[in-house]
Amino acid sequence: VEYKDDATAFNGLKKGTIAGKGVINNEMSNRLMQMLEKQGIPTHFVKELDSRQTLVKKVSIVPLEVLFRNISAGSFSKHYGVEEGIVFEHPTIEFSYKNDALGDPLLNTYHALALKLATPEEIKTIEDYSFRINEALKAFWLTCGVTLVDFKLEFGRLSDGTIVLADEISPDPCRFWDATTGAHLDKDLFRRDLGGEEEAYREVMKRLPGE
Amino acid sequence: VEYKDDATAFNGLKKGTIAGKGVINNEMSNRLMQMLEKQGIPTHFVKELDSRQTLVKKVSIVPLEVLFRNISAGSFSKHYGVEEGIVFEHPTIEFSYKNDALGDPLLNTYHALALKLATPEEIKTIEDYSFRINEALKAFWLTCGVTLVDFKLEFGRLSDGTIVLADEISPDPCRFWDATTGAHLDKDLFRRDLGGEEEAYREVMKRLPGE
Repeated sequence: VEYKDDATAFNGLKKGTIAGKGVINNEMSNRLMQMLEKQGIPTHFVKELDSRQTLVKKVSIVPLEVLFRNISAGSFSKHYGVEEGIVFEHPTIEFSYKNDALGDPLLNTYHALALKLATPEEIKTIEDYSFRINEALKAFWLTCGVTLVDFKLEFGRLSDGTIVLADEISPDPCRFWDATTGAHLDKDLFRRDLGGEEEAYREVMKRLPGE
Repeated sequence: VEYKDDATAFNGLKKGTIAGKGVINNEMSNRLMQMLEKQGIPTHFVKELDSRQTLVKKVSIVPLEVLFRNISAGSFSKHYGVEEGIVFEHPTIEFSYKNDALGDPLLNTYHALALKLATPEEIKTIEDYSFRINEALKAFWLTCGVTLVDFKLEFGRLSDGTIVLADEISPDPCRFWDATTGAHLDKDLFRRDLGGEEEAYREVMKRLPGE
């Protein structure tokens, strides 16, 4: 995979560039995936090739995007009419049907099975991994002074059917808030035309402890 | 409750009248609720007062609409881009947040809990009842030559917190297809401007065996 500086939002309706994003996302995602591997979560990561390119295992992506939320924000707040920043007693997990033409609609596990998007065993595995990934990432980011608000995950099937974490873990699919100030350190700055996204990506990268 | 002939669709955007509907829905719903009571499902039904009015227990409605589907149709087909008429191997159950201003958005049980719309125990009870209601209604309607495609249920809390089935069971919240011809015998005739809704309501009522 190659990490570019291109940024999109709202299902591709908004397009732009965040200078330096590709280099940051490549390194951040690779380091977080290696951390998760050590905690028993299989991922697609093989080897970082250079500052923008990484060798990953060949997978067929499961057409279910996983959205995991610890705090209300974004589409959750919009759809259900609640303010952002409500800390949930229990995190929420939701699936959307990865299908651009349909606008990635929300669905539940009954729908996913009816549409034959995954098997019951695959969905169970994806849910289990997602809860474990949240615990690991939330605890890790807290030590970096960053609140993990919510994030999107994608999973893939290896040729033997094994489910592994794919896509990326970065300020693109994750909402990061500064744990002290609550400042956005993620793509919401771009999505919402708030500005400062390049500095924010650099800032959140800087928070990652050295290897 | 009083059953009128007023018909609405699309969250109130379409309004009209289906002559005779109130009398039919009152009798049909009462008979089906009494049948479900005999099978151990508590309902709000107390006594039919006249052809349009029924005495029901006072409940506070749980703000979760239950949509139960045996066959693809309506919003399922639209949102997920599949034809109508696909018989699911396993039925699907979904919740929507009963909130007109928000357009009754789809949500899952994690969301419902995060929004504190119901307790985990209430959601478990509602799911269990819904599966049992589907089995009972599907089997019953089949003996009447009617396929139960999907339906919406609402539940209420009695003053002591007991969950009971509320609202109505009729061609308004249910999709009924003639088991032989597949003809619509429900509100889709009105929603989709197909015509013949008055005859269809009378027809599906006629299929109910005498008491």
